[in-house]
Amino acid sequence: LDPGPSRVAIVGRGLIGGSIELALAQRAPSIEVVALDRGEDLAAIAGADLVVLAAPVLENISLLRAIQPHLGPSTIVTDTGSTKAAIMEGAQGLRFVGGHPIAGVAGAGRTFARADLFAGRRWILTPGHSTPAADIKTVTVLAEWCGARVELLDAVDHDRIFALVSHLPQLAVSALMHVAGTHSGEEALALAGAGLRDATRLAASPPEIWRDVIATNRDSVSKALDLLIQALVEMRDDATGEALTRIFASAAASKRRLDDAPI
Amino acid sequence: LDPGPSRVAIVGRGLIGGSIELALAQRAPSIEVVALDRGEDLAAIAGADLVVLAAPVLENISLLRAIQPHLGPSTIVTDTGSTKAAIMEGAQGLRFVGGHPIAGVAGAGRTFARADLFAGRRWILTPGHSTPAADIKTVTVLAEWCGARVELLDAVDHDRIFALVSHLPQLAVSALMHVAGTHSGEEALALAGAGLRDATRLAASPPEIWRDVIATNRDSVSKALDLLIQALVEMRDDATGEALTRIFASAAASKRRLDDAPI
Repeated sequence: LDPGPSRVAIVGRGLIGGSIELALAQRAPSIEVVALDRGEDLAAIAGADLVVLAAPVLENISLLRAIQPHLGPSTIVTDTGSTKAAIMEGAQGLRFVGGHPIAGVAGAGRTFARADLFAGRRWILTPGHSTPAADIKTVTVLAEWCGARVELLDAVDHDRIFALVSHLPQLAVSALMHVAGTHSGEEALALAGAGLRDATRLAASPPEIWRDVIATNRDSVSKALDLLIQALVEMRDDATGEALTRIFASAAASKRRLDDAPI
Repeated sequence: LDPGPSRVAIVGRGLIGGSIELALAQRAPSIEVVALDRGEDLAAIAGADLVVLAAPVLENISLLRAIQPHLGPSTIVTDTGSTKAAIMEGAQGLRFVGGHPIAGVAGAGRTFARADLFAGRRWILTPGHSTPAADIKTVTVLAEWCGARVELLDAVDHDRIFALVSHLPQLAVSALMHVAGTHSGEEALALAGAGLRDATRLAASPPEIWRDVIATNRDSVSKALDLLIQALVEMRDDATGEALTRIFASAAASKRRLDDAPI
């Protein structure tokens, strides 16, 4: 019977770190939680058996080094970033299990933190090839305290998949809202129907988070952008409507699969 | 005091035509309504003082000729298509007022028709320069029976604006869903968060409707696609994160304007 970690340190108290804090207070009230704002003295993490890095990706990668003096031999480290290969690379030599909780709909920042942000959602872990099962188990307990269910994935596969199903959608929506907003004029934007409003919810996402995500997954994101650009060029040069028909049919079929898939 | 039309003929009984039919039955039960499925004998429209063309755009344009033998000298014709310049061109010589009701969220086809589909929404009219005010008034009464409020717009301005706020979003979302679905694989799609699901509601739109829309607004749609492709290329070639930061900031500002605008 695995009691899970008894002392958890969280570095970063935004939407993700803050929500983990709230979930632990609710679901695991007997464990000790130390939560640090970015920039606070990392000495406070000493004695933790699990450290959760919940800052933007590049800062998490820097923190891997900065926390080292404060880690014991049995301290496990995990993170919550949206890319996994770069941080796995940087974490060599640590007892590290990469993590990526898939949050539900929320705004950005601590204001939107909720104990149930991860309830019923996936929490992907990307252990290395030689990661002990016990370390994976410790992070799994944390995810389950947050109400999530764990799925294991190879870090490189993770990044390739999320380039297509998460990073590309974010860039496409931001580019679309930028173009529609910049070129249509003030009153014109008011003429948009529900379609544009629904399609562009992601356009409010914080650039400082996404800059790091894209920077640490550049190859896969470039390839995904090329595929999207290619499809748009085909529709632009589509004299007969053939490309539109083909791409709409493919999109409708994928949309059905997406909506039928469990969350 | 204008009583509006007393005999309305609707050609096309899909989502739009069907919803107008339901709204009239509810809000103007004393008027006579003749609703024809596409392909039915157009002679049935004889005697109507308002004819509403509610088929896909290119079919509406063909119908302008086909209905002519059945129009009286005072019959006003309107349509409900998403592009306006092409049909205005084709309607010369008729008492025609172009119309474009902006429906709320709905599926495609008659199954989704609702009496309140246009309630509280805009219904754009694009009269010609010499259209009599009385003709505009007749179509306005129809729109108001459907619960919509009328806005007048030049047909060419309409098409330029809707290329950006409606046609481009549709093509971008279909291309995005096509790419994400085709290249990520069956299980991978299930890993998508709420972001992709929300962003791609439009991916279920019917290609037969959109083929006509794009075909009758090719120049403006091409320009809009070029702007989107340009933004995506900038983000793909963005070594420093400068383009991402700039485009995200522009998108977030436009998104706030969009969400603050009245529906």
